[in-house]
Amino acid sequence: MTIPGLMMQQPLLISSLLVHAERHHAEQEIVSRRVEGDIHRETFRELAARSRRLANALAALGVKQGDRVATIAWNGYRHMELYYAVSGSGAVLHTLNPRLHPDQVVYIADHAEDSVLFFDLTFLPLVEAFASRVKTIKKFVVMTDRAHMPKESKVPGLLCYEELIDAASDAYVWPSFDENAASSLCYTSGTTGHPKGVLYSHRSTILHTYAVALPDTLNCSARDAILPVVPMFHVNAWGLPYAACMVGAKLVFPGPALDGKSLHELLESEKVTVSAGVPTVWQGLLAYMDASKLKFSTMRRTVIGGSACPPAMIRAFKEAYNVDVLHAWGMTETSPLGTACAFKPKHLGQSQEEHYAVMAKQGRGLYGIDMKIVGEDGAELPWGGEKSGELLVRGPWVVNRYFKDEGGNPLLTDADGHGWFPTGDVARIDTDGYMQITDRSKDVIKSGGEWIGSIDLENIAMAHPAVAMAACIAAHHPKWDERPLLVVVKKPGAEVTRDELIAFFDGKIAKWWTPDDVVFVDAIQLGATGKMLKNRLRDQFKDYKLPTA
Amino acid sequence: MTIPGLMMQQPLLISSLLVHAERHHAEQEIVSRRVEGDIHRETFRELAARSRRLANALAALGVKQGDRVATIAWNGYRHMELYYAVSGSGAVLHTLNPRLHPDQVVYIADHAEDSVLFFDLTFLPLVEAFASRVKTIKKFVVMTDRAHMPKESKVPGLLCYEELIDAASDAYVWPSFDENAASSLCYTSGTTGHPKGVLYSHRSTILHTYAVALPDTLNCSARDAILPVVPMFHVNAWGLPYAACMVGAKLVFPGPALDGKSLHELLESEKVTVSAGVPTVWQGLLAYMDASKLKFSTMRRTVIGGSACPPAMIRAFKEAYNVDVLHAWGMTETSPLGTACAFKPKHLGQSQEEHYAVMAKQGRGLYGIDMKIVGEDGAELPWGGEKSGELLVRGPWVVNRYFKDEGGNPLLTDADGHGWFPTGDVARIDTDGYMQITDRSKDVIKSGGEWIGSIDLENIAMAHPAVAMAACIAAHHPKWDERPLLVVVKKPGAEVTRDELIAFFDGKIAKWWTPDDVVFVDAIQLGATGKMLKNRLRDQFKDYKLPTA
Repeated sequence: MTIPGLMMQQPLLISSLLVHAERHHAEQEIVSRRVEGDIHRETFRELAARSRRLANALAALGVKQGDRVATIAWNGYRHMELYYAVSGSGAVLHTLNPRLHPDQVVYIADHAEDSVLFFDLTFLPLVEAFASRVKTIKKFVVMTDRAHMPKESKVPGLLCYEELIDAASDAYVWPSFDENAASSLCYTSGTTGHPKGVLYSHRSTILHTYAVALPDTLNCSARDAILPVVPMFHVNAWGLPYAACMVGAKLVFPGPALDGKSLHELLESEKVTVSAGVPTVWQGLLAYMDASKLKFSTMRRTVIGGSACPPAMIRAFKEAYNVDVLHAWGMTETSPLGTACAFKPKHLGQSQEEHYAVMAKQGRGLYGIDMKIVGEDGAELPWGGEKSGELLVRGPWVVNRYFKDEGGNPLLTDADGHGWFPTGDVARIDTDGYMQITDRSKDVIKSGGEWIGSIDLENIAMAHPAVAMAACIAAHHPKWDERPLLVVVKKPGAEVTRDELIAFFDGKIAKWWTPDDVVFVDAIQLGATGKMLKNRLRDQFKDYKLPTA
Repeated sequence: MTIPGLMMQQPLLISSLLVHAERHHAEQEIVSRRVEGDIHRETFRELAARSRRLANALAALGVKQGDRVATIAWNGYRHMELYYAVSGSGAVLHTLNPRLHPDQVVYIADHAEDSVLFFDLTFLPLVEAFASRVKTIKKFVVMTDRAHMPKESKVPGLLCYEELIDAASDAYVWPSFDENAASSLCYTSGTTGHPKGVLYSHRSTILHTYAVALPDTLNCSARDAILPVVPMFHVNAWGLPYAACMVGAKLVFPGPALDGKSLHELLESEKVTVSAGVPTVWQGLLAYMDASKLKFSTMRRTVIGGSACPPAMIRAFKEAYNVDVLHAWGMTETSPLGTACAFKPKHLGQSQEEHYAVMAKQGRGLYGIDMKIVGEDGAELPWGGEKSGELLVRGPWVVNRYFKDEGGNPLLTDADGHGWFPTGDVARIDTDGYMQITDRSKDVIKSGGEWIGSIDLENIAMAHPAVAMAACIAAHHPKWDERPLLVVVKKPGAEVTRDELIAFFDGKIAKWWTPDDVVFVDAIQLGATGKMLKNRLRDQFKDYKLPTA
């Protein structure tokens, strides 16, 4: 029997991040490009006071602890205030993804039983499209001031955010409660089946925040200015709104303006040092900067996750702009960060080319996250091997089961009785512990019983100067069962032939991995979180006849 | 009522640091200068395997969960193995300070009810001096191999560490238990009254480790090589043995060789990037390097805490050796780190002189630690004011009460019902949240009802080129009650008069703070943790007649 330690018992609560930020970094700024078009600035002192007002306003709206409060909003200070006021008061912040179809929003809001919805002006048409259909949302709050409130709306009784804030007192003491209480809720995008809700706790969020801010993860300090392009409506913007308060970093929110020009202006004017987002966002920025011959004055790091970052993009950031890409991996179910690709001492003396090879991987597991890869029989595969396997993870910020899905525990239990979350990603792990996603398990191409990783093939194709986007999918083959088919979007004005592209794979990969054919399309559809919708492509090409068949 | 989150429940256990280090940083090294004189190297893989063997060996010795296992040892790999094997198996690691008098060791070992003692060869004479007097220690293990075992000893039945390891299997699964279980025990040096035991928990240790490794704290990454001069027998070497496993940093242990020459050799040969220790250790190193005209090739940061670091030392490190001093504050009761002095963005454009002024402070509170200063009436004093007050702290790695001291809860309870630990330190906090210790409350000089901070006066005296060490104590004064008396040790061969030293304070401090007199002594005695024993000086000068009296 162990004996109890004698240290203070304090629950790990999200509100303590805000209290810390106000007390130690009161003058630090949150700068937001607003939906209204202008640039807004507030200090952490103002953030804290307005969050306390908002907590009082929530109570006045009838929100109780445990209630779900929904948002449909861009990255901005009002969304940040909701992050702290809702979770801090013991209610649950439910961030809705505005890129979803109204039918999906209705399903999710009903499933979550949201009671109040806060939304940015931009999303009024979306809200109008579903407001009469949601069952539990009784109050709709527009995140703007009186002057910008819609003159009329199909949604009756619209409330005004700034009026709620103005009417509330800033005297509010954040309540103390069990650190395992739910803090926030995010639904997976759900390309198959219904979206599923991940219910984060205060404890999981604080532990994740510590891990996110570490030097070998996102390396956040009080001297950083962080611009999260990754949306606050998707897995808490990778925890950056929390990490900024933990360390006192400046936050720069781009609002709805995610085009290259707007992003570059904000990165420069606010002296941003680090940004974070999915690869597709950066394509627009890099294309704009390339065309306009622009550079970065202060930005030296960018965190890329959500999808595998094409090596060509890592190279472009470094060689043209002297920006180090930090490749990271995670998912809604992992809060999200699971790995980050920081160097080990052995890499320090290596060449830039060797560095690129490391940087192309999603990186090492954060302390707190255990990971392993398993074969189709569930047996663990060795690190450093050639074989990819399904990635399983566990840790205090990994989902245990989905919200209100009592029967559907997503965990696998291993021989030692440990529960592991099956990520649905297929990966290799090298001897140094660097994990590299080779595929989604549903996207993997099974050729003659062996797996071909579609991401490896896409990365090679993306390195061709004429290729804007590439997806590799399985096409039916009478002998091999499946063979790779490369679907390509060409860059505007660029030309490349099928044979040139196939020849481009020579020497870059095992011969039998080479795609059997190439088709050119005008566009590849992206999902709500910026990922290529490969299931759509598979549907489109399900009867495609390979020339090798 | 909040609702429970749905994330995995995993206890925060020290063993998970070792598992992580083995899995992700198996090849990283722990380099130790041994008591036997040579340099020893082992990898994290070997550390993990030997710690598992040791856990089996502890079980074979009859050690059960909750039992206290004592060490008297330098910084080295065997001590590191004990850190993980003892705590990881659910027993309690009790690090004894070898600089204590044998009577104190007996008191502490009996109070802790230690069952086994592991000690370095160096300490055989000390152990022989008390072994027959301790009540509960039944087994004595020398941390060496058979070849170096003492031929004979007054301690009967001495066991050999390497024989225990060799005899044990490396198959061991770290047990899972409540994260609030006790992990380690450290007694305060106790200049007054009996030493008091602080019983850390696994949870407090892991949370502290996250905070320690953050960029604005000790900024630990896998690319660092860390040399903790701060002893592992004192507050867990500031958490560095844990942080190194969390991030995969190389550890370099100096063993007993803390002289300037030995330290410099090791810092150079092992390419150390960051070191940590109390100011008195660095005096020896800097004096040696100055005399030998040496530089550092790789070391760029040193963490100084334990006592206030004299500004002259911060300047010497920077100007002569291009090393940034990171000033930190903590105590046994705070695990230990409470503050660290990293810059804010506002400092980035400032001059070196302005930087020195910031670096002289002990720094900003880590996220997780709340701090405040209170006046003699217990009321909170404002930040940014002139007045110092007693420093109170709270947080999940702050002591709640001392071990087996049921009646003596050290906490103060404020009006909101929060428990605060009274540090006994007197401090100011500026508007940016940087805390600066001005005194220990028992050392403060009360002149005409106002407080004079002895550390401010000592720092000024230490900046004089002829002064090796300076202590400022209260001397009795018939009118003002107390007035400052400066006690000075001159540098070898240097000369300075009383009047010159008093004139040296001109313009550096309020006139009425100037010491009333100076006495020169040959030496000032240091306590077991390297701090000046001012109570001894007060005894010595208790009848001193000031010329102003």
